[in-house]
Amino acid sequence: MTAYKDLSVEELKSLKSELEKEFAEVKARNLKLDMSRGKPSQAQLDLSMGMMDVLSSKANLYCEEGVDCRNYGVLDGIREAKRLLSDMSEVPKENIVIFGNSSLNLMYDTVARSMTHGVMGSTPWCKLDKVKFLCPVPGYDRHFAITEHFGIEMINVPMTDEGPDMDMVEELVSSDESIKGIWCVPKYSNPQGITYSDRTVRRFARLKPAAKDFRIYWDNAYCIHHLYEDKQDYLIEILMACKQEGNPDMVYKFCSTSKVSFPGSGIAAIAASTANLEAIRKQMQIQTIGHDKLNQLRHARFYGNIHGMVQHMRKHAEILRPKFEAVLDCLEKELKGLEIGSWIRPRGGYFISFDSLEGCAKAIVAKAKEAGVVMTPAGATFPYGKDPKDSNIRIAPSFPTPEELAEAAKIFVLSVKLVSIDKILGEKNG
Amino acid sequence: MTAYKDLSVEELKSLKSELEKEFAEVKARNLKLDMSRGKPSQAQLDLSMGMMDVLSSKANLYCEEGVDCRNYGVLDGIREAKRLLSDMSEVPKENIVIFGNSSLNLMYDTVARSMTHGVMGSTPWCKLDKVKFLCPVPGYDRHFAITEHFGIEMINVPMTDEGPDMDMVEELVSSDESIKGIWCVPKYSNPQGITYSDRTVRRFARLKPAAKDFRIYWDNAYCIHHLYEDKQDYLIEILMACKQEGNPDMVYKFCSTSKVSFPGSGIAAIAASTANLEAIRKQMQIQTIGHDKLNQLRHARFYGNIHGMVQHMRKHAEILRPKFEAVLDCLEKELKGLEIGSWIRPRGGYFISFDSLEGCAKAIVAKAKEAGVVMTPAGATFPYGKDPKDSNIRIAPSFPTPEELAEAAKIFVLSVKLVSIDKILGEKNG
Repeated sequence: MTAYKDLSVEELKSLKSELEKEFAEVKARNLKLDMSRGKPSQAQLDLSMGMMDVLSSKANLYCEEGVDCRNYGVLDGIREAKRLLSDMSEVPKENIVIFGNSSLNLMYDTVARSMTHGVMGSTPWCKLDKVKFLCPVPGYDRHFAITEHFGIEMINVPMTDEGPDMDMVEELVSSDESIKGIWCVPKYSNPQGITYSDRTVRRFARLKPAAKDFRIYWDNAYCIHHLYEDKQDYLIEILMACKQEGNPDMVYKFCSTSKVSFPGSGIAAIAASTANLEAIRKQMQIQTIGHDKLNQLRHARFYGNIHGMVQHMRKHAEILRPKFEAVLDCLEKELKGLEIGSWIRPRGGYFISFDSLEGCAKAIVAKAKEAGVVMTPAGATFPYGKDPKDSNIRIAPSFPTPEELAEAAKIFVLSVKLVSIDKILGEKNG
Repeated sequence: MTAYKDLSVEELKSLKSELEKEFAEVKARNLKLDMSRGKPSQAQLDLSMGMMDVLSSKANLYCEEGVDCRNYGVLDGIREAKRLLSDMSEVPKENIVIFGNSSLNLMYDTVARSMTHGVMGSTPWCKLDKVKFLCPVPGYDRHFAITEHFGIEMINVPMTDEGPDMDMVEELVSSDESIKGIWCVPKYSNPQGITYSDRTVRRFARLKPAAKDFRIYWDNAYCIHHLYEDKQDYLIEILMACKQEGNPDMVYKFCSTSKVSFPGSGIAAIAASTANLEAIRKQMQIQTIGHDKLNQLRHARFYGNIHGMVQHMRKHAEILRPKFEAVLDCLEKELKGLEIGSWIRPRGGYFISFDSLEGCAKAIVAKAKEAGVVMTPAGATFPYGKDPKDSNIRIAPSFPTPEELAEAAKIFVLSVKLVSIDKILGEKNG
């Protein structure tokens, strides 16, 4: 393959007219394909259908505490749910509190609480002139939406293949007291699928923040969401790492079963130090009498334990793997060597991240849409929706069928090629 | 019956020694009885057991929107859940948004949002020097806990038998811009079981608040929680009343199925004007992708419609009615005419409110505890846990069995008598 930049203007123009013909053909088919959302497919949801029967009217609805799960009681999660999610999170069960159906809601509440009540006795953030968060980019749009909603200034930190640029993180966190947090998806990151290296996690644990109420928001959304049996990323457990470095209170770790059982009907948890959890429970007992214990029990009974859950995740992987490979194979087959884009082959998670030539992402997404393929809006992976290079595109291969994905991937690479040729032609003419 | 105050010192002393003997006898039985919590009994929970089977693995899990309830989507509640809870709330379904498992959490979030983001564009309350709420007393401790948690100053407003003292409410709300809300349980109020009269509701709807971000927090927790078929309280629908008076945005109305289906595993809703809901949804979409749609579907399918729910509430009433009557009959039989306490015979809700002689409530609760009966702590029905007259005691008859209740009520009246005699003797001697 010759890189597009090395083709002559004539060659590019002729290639363009070929590709335009191809594009017109697929466009004429009026397809409707969606690669925009990190949404499990129906086949994945079917894996958990047993959960609908596990708590029947004949079932024992008492949890291990001896409490009737149908009634009030047990503020911070039933024992069996704590065991399951603490194993999932690799933390002692004393360090976990179970919440409602969504870790996003839990992260929102965590920031909201810090705004009005500070962090373990610190000044409420709403009383400060300026609060800032570090945002490794590309990252998760809903994280950025939370901090933006609260008027928190977001600072981009570039991702490397080992995680966020830790030189920059260390420098900023240690020098600026207004920096109160950093959003991390440390394993199979959204959208790149990068897992933070041992060195990165150790450097996180050794941070010396200027702000004593600085917290690492460790959203371990894809902790057991591997695509392969034999190639799995390993992530150092951050709570223990922070404790070992004398920073036990510096991290909040989040997880949920949204992409294990049912999105929206799962259970979520926060893992943190005893001191952090004490502050959290103090607010929690004002906010609620307790979360849905029947749903906690449903999850605990269905999976049995972490081994059951890991088995279950293998079935998810079997469904997801061919979809990822369909997209990745298409990217490799069609784009390798053309130097008009780069991507990473993730070993887990829900996304593939594509970086186009600078200034092309929005145009590519728009082009794909012309032919009926919906992508996550370009820019969504950056704070304020602004990708300074306009190059990152998140691909979500989980929901469509493999056949739909093959179609969608083809349209995507066609769009990449066409937009890239225009850019290169523009430069050559300019 | 002779009023205790009209008895001579000798008579009182002799009565006291008889009662002390009786008390010593029940105390020796080492009972453990609990009238402290507004918690449905097991028999009530059993009424909803069909809900555990209504969504089996064989069920159709799509809601009326055509969305798979197992997956992401539908931010503000599925259509059938909106229909059910809007009928329950007597509002158009366009005016309702479904939330998670608890209306308390929803009320907390509503105050929290006002703290950080204001109300429909007003200054965030955390930026104001002073925020105040009116609190009809006696009232619900968890309401007061929320406002206290956010540092909101609470002003007691006495309850009358028609609802809060509206002269005082009108005067304060129209003159003080820092008053941003009032907590109301307008039907079968907690703890008195009073339903606001038509006149009271009309005066609420006609309020002319100094603060444009003043809202009535209308916690209609017991809207369909009648005890009798033939004696039911009627409450004017507040949203419509406010609209008619040109104050459409002045009220948030809350409800939940916590005491219809399962406490902690129910569904909750807020009803409000279009403009209010627009502001709420704006924040809601940052906080969550959506609440538990499977649980919404479970409720909608199990009750079918409001008629099914009303039928269901009759079964609750059949269980609750004899319990209320056991306590009320005991109070009447044992205390009527003694002039050492007063109470109201409620037609619904979860509580009986008892007013002792001034300065006796804490002592009565302590006395009952000596004999193994746990009551809600005296003072809990007032902001900051401070009952200025130390006279109100909340009785929760729902959870114990009728036999336990008969025992507990007897111990309670014994405690009332003993503590009252001490007080009267003290006065006569003083």
